[in-house]
Amino acid sequence: MPPAASTPAYRRLNVEERRSQLLDAALTLFAHRAPEEISLDDVAEAAGVSRPLVYRYFPGGKQQLYEAALRSAADELQQCFDEPREGPLLARLARALDRYLGFVDQHDAGFSALLQGGSVVETSRTTAIVDGVRRAAAVHILSHLGVTEPGPRLRMTVRMWITAVEAASLIWLDEDKEPPLDELRDWLVEQFGAVLAVTARRDPQTAALVQGLAADG
Amino acid sequence: MPPAASTPAYRRLNVEERRSQLLDAALTLFAHRAPEEISLDDVAEAAGVSRPLVYRYFPGGKQQLYEAALRSAADELQQCFDEPREGPLLARLARALDRYLGFVDQHDAGFSALLQGGSVVETSRTTAIVDGVRRAAAVHILSHLGVTEPGPRLRMTVRMWITAVEAASLIWLDEDKEPPLDELRDWLVEQFGAVLAVTARRDPQTAALVQGLAADG
Repeated sequence: MPPAASTPAYRRLNVEERRSQLLDAALTLFAHRAPEEISLDDVAEAAGVSRPLVYRYFPGGKQQLYEAALRSAADELQQCFDEPREGPLLARLARALDRYLGFVDQHDAGFSALLQGGSVVETSRTTAIVDGVRRAAAVHILSHLGVTEPGPRLRMTVRMWITAVEAASLIWLDEDKEPPLDELRDWLVEQFGAVLAVTARRDPQTAALVQGLAADG
Repeated sequence: MPPAASTPAYRRLNVEERRSQLLDAALTLFAHRAPEEISLDDVAEAAGVSRPLVYRYFPGGKQQLYEAALRSAADELQQCFDEPREGPLLARLARALDRYLGFVDQHDAGFSALLQGGSVVETSRTTAIVDGVRRAAAVHILSHLGVTEPGPRLRMTVRMWITAVEAASLIWLDEDKEPPLDELRDWLVEQFGAVLAVTARRDPQTAALVQGLAADG
């Protein structure tokens, strides 16, 4: 029996609750400092538990904790994309973007550290988690557009816009969150409309969509 | 005296020539395989030299060689952006993009490995090299646009488009280089015009530029 289990405070939470408490503490730390600046001691201190307890839950140490926290952030991000299939398409996109930018705003430093790469704990697994979020965003957008078999030009347009949004988020954090979130959101939606219109000139599938969007207004 | 120095073949090249020969060999390898799959033995074999000789030039081993090869690729990429200040702006952009996409086409696998991150040898220094290329691209574009003090909205528009081009390059490699390079180039130039036009609605500085581009045609 590990020593921590004998302390009453440690018995109050069950395994899932404890795990989730540690992930929350880690996410909050990662949200404000780069991963390489955070130690397991910091996480233990933030959660008000002992270092051995953190190791008991994350025997792989910091790398495992970082990946779990990243996965939990990725899940939260993907929830931003959930949007009912009602009303004009661009308005739905604006609402999803609003939640996404709210997440970026709230997790600023951690979000930058996560996406800017070069972190000492970055691995192909963490890259895969971030890529999973990008892919989920593309799937959501194409599904709202009502497209089940997107051609290469439409697919590339959507993926390019998602990358541009990600870049905009990082630049926005870098520029002290200017322009204001509402303006950034509307501007990004307008850009989506504009790049779709450009692709429509070369791609009949996208042209049909753009016609639908105009009627949708 | 290292043993390699006694072999006549090793004396023919001076230090700079030898270094450049090793970098060329490394770049060619990195261009077709992910960095983590390449050993110093492979580089030595590709350059037709001994492993100790590679270590003599790159005592930091694979990491140092990788960074030097990356820096040399970054220099080559930045040369793609050199474009005389003559003729319509979007035509200049198309010519620079043509050279850039030619580079992507030629270095396909290495280019992907480099930019997709998650590489075992990725560090904050290699990230800084890649970021340097992005920054150089933005500086070139703004300077061709004749802007010395870009406001936040114009700056963000240019940086978002550069990121979107990078994403397009990776997707293009992923999709067996479809659409053809010429079409991709023209499409990306059109997207640049479209996002500038969207920003122009919110930003007087960009609006003045877009007017100039229309007159330029």
